[in-house]
Amino acid sequence: MVTKEFDVAIIGATGAVGAEFVDLFAKRQFPIKNLRLLASPRSVGKQIEFQEEIITVAEADINSVKGADIVFFSAGAERSRRLAPGAVEQGSLVIDNSSAFRMDPTVPLVVPEVNLDTLTPGTRLISVPNCTAIILVVAVNPLRSLGAIDRLIVSAYQSASGGGAAVMDYLESDTRAFLDGSTRPTKPGLPPYAFNLFSHNTPVGENGYNEEEQKVIEESRKILGMPSLKVNVTCVRVPVLRAHTETVTVEFAGPAPSVEAVRACLAAAPGVRVVDDREANHFPTPAEASGQGDVLVGRIRQDLSNPNAISMLIAGDQLLKGAALNAVQIAEAYLAKFPDGK
Amino acid sequence: MVTKEFDVAIIGATGAVGAEFVDLFAKRQFPIKNLRLLASPRSVGKQIEFQEEIITVAEADINSVKGADIVFFSAGAERSRRLAPGAVEQGSLVIDNSSAFRMDPTVPLVVPEVNLDTLTPGTRLISVPNCTAIILVVAVNPLRSLGAIDRLIVSAYQSASGGGAAVMDYLESDTRAFLDGSTRPTKPGLPPYAFNLFSHNTPVGENGYNEEEQKVIEESRKILGMPSLKVNVTCVRVPVLRAHTETVTVEFAGPAPSVEAVRACLAAAPGVRVVDDREANHFPTPAEASGQGDVLVGRIRQDLSNPNAISMLIAGDQLLKGAALNAVQIAEAYLAKFPDGK
Repeated sequence: MVTKEFDVAIIGATGAVGAEFVDLFAKRQFPIKNLRLLASPRSVGKQIEFQEEIITVAEADINSVKGADIVFFSAGAERSRRLAPGAVEQGSLVIDNSSAFRMDPTVPLVVPEVNLDTLTPGTRLISVPNCTAIILVVAVNPLRSLGAIDRLIVSAYQSASGGGAAVMDYLESDTRAFLDGSTRPTKPGLPPYAFNLFSHNTPVGENGYNEEEQKVIEESRKILGMPSLKVNVTCVRVPVLRAHTETVTVEFAGPAPSVEAVRACLAAAPGVRVVDDREANHFPTPAEASGQGDVLVGRIRQDLSNPNAISMLIAGDQLLKGAALNAVQIAEAYLAKFPDGK
Repeated sequence: MVTKEFDVAIIGATGAVGAEFVDLFAKRQFPIKNLRLLASPRSVGKQIEFQEEIITVAEADINSVKGADIVFFSAGAERSRRLAPGAVEQGSLVIDNSSAFRMDPTVPLVVPEVNLDTLTPGTRLISVPNCTAIILVVAVNPLRSLGAIDRLIVSAYQSASGGGAAVMDYLESDTRAFLDGSTRPTKPGLPPYAFNLFSHNTPVGENGYNEEEQKVIEESRKILGMPSLKVNVTCVRVPVLRAHTETVTVEFAGPAPSVEAVRACLAAAPGVRVVDDREANHFPTPAEASGQGDVLVGRIRQDLSNPNAISMLIAGDQLLKGAALNAVQIAEAYLAKFPDGK
């Protein structure tokens, strides 16, 4: 049997997530016969190596995806809104990393460990959820087998990578300047970042929640298929480069399962790695979460303030499971279900 | 009237908190006639300037505090346990920054904005609470005027300064090495720290909570005089130099007060500064909290997951309000109540 190979395009190929796509395609031997690397005009002409071949970045427009079997979008919601519908129309399967279509009830919002059942033969546009929501649901979904979940209380320690390569660069350059005592760079809309943290810089709505927090609430509900799940969340950007950490308290409708039951459940869950050594004080860190695909879970304990709740600390690579890896896993699962890509 | 002046000693004068004491005594014109700077043998002989006078650091032992009116301890619990009882016995007023006596029911655990009433004429030993607990209760205590508080849910974003000057140095040197690509330093008991965060490195008990979290729970209850207050807390060390940040959800026994009522209450509260500009996305940050004495409070909003709760983001300088400033404020309040220092 010859495995079918596909004509694949990445829109946003020169960004932080785009680079991870190229890397993952090679590492996971994604069935590619032709790879198109597309970006905004200022990146056109850049050369990127893929499997010993040099690919020149071309401009992302509707012509550039003509004939592509699968198009991965990772260039912001505006770009997706402008180009994704045309890509679908001309026959591509679109996997969109942006927020553009996530809450569209006709578009599946997929984390493969949780809701692959939402992919149907007619599906041609699939949204990849917000990174903080992905990492959260991978760790929380398995616990539903232990009891009905009523409420999540989350504080996110979000890395610079969530803001893209420019914010990662800003963190590095501001930290260098701080340490050298030289003039600190500035970035519009962001506070000083060296050894500092700040409430997530997305606009704050009437109810006092910022857009990032609204995404975590609404997307978690959609992915889990729990429209009335209660979610308390605060999103904070910390001076970490590329993995997100979250404190999570899970309140069940009845008495909480034991710590042992939670640990056993998570140890068996796909996409989860339990890192919970109390003796050695070894728990999930963003450094350990970086560069790998699992969501690390530890500090699993009964909530002393509520007999129905357990608390834990989780971490996942924002660029991988929070973005590129989740998108590639969606494509792989889709192709496993519908091998000709239709 | 001539203001009485005192013979004052600092034990731990060369540490991160010790340096803040010397600075605060000068800035606040603390009534000092003689200042003794005391430390462990390896710091003996160091010279520190105080009000245009050079003071040579001497070894901290029971003889070195003989005759001192007020002794500030900031050299760890073991040192306090060894020397503080003798200092009290020979007549000093002891204000102890360590955890040694905090939970002793005969010792007041004081945050001046909250429980000055626990200082009585016989008081000769006063404990300064854990930094994370101080910052928390300064922001939470005023809200009791708006309704009975049932439960606090806290995630702490704790700075390197909580571990002392050595941990601050480790954060800086590891970050330099990371950026330079040179050999990274290590520190026993701590993970890599550059652009990384980790669960607080104190020992984890049977119940899964680490010592820092236990302190926050027990000390908050004692300071607030609410022995059955429910507290959910997770303490995480972030790569920030000197101020702690906390996400705080306050669950009331009944319906939560309005955001406007909370904001007005906190704006009038001592030691609190409301920094809550949704339009400008300007909220508390450790950078803004550093080097000043208030607890900054913002992101005040109704908890969408519980009609009885409000959420907020708070930040305070760990070395100042979290340690040295709170200690000096205790001494000032004591002297205001008992002007001859007895």
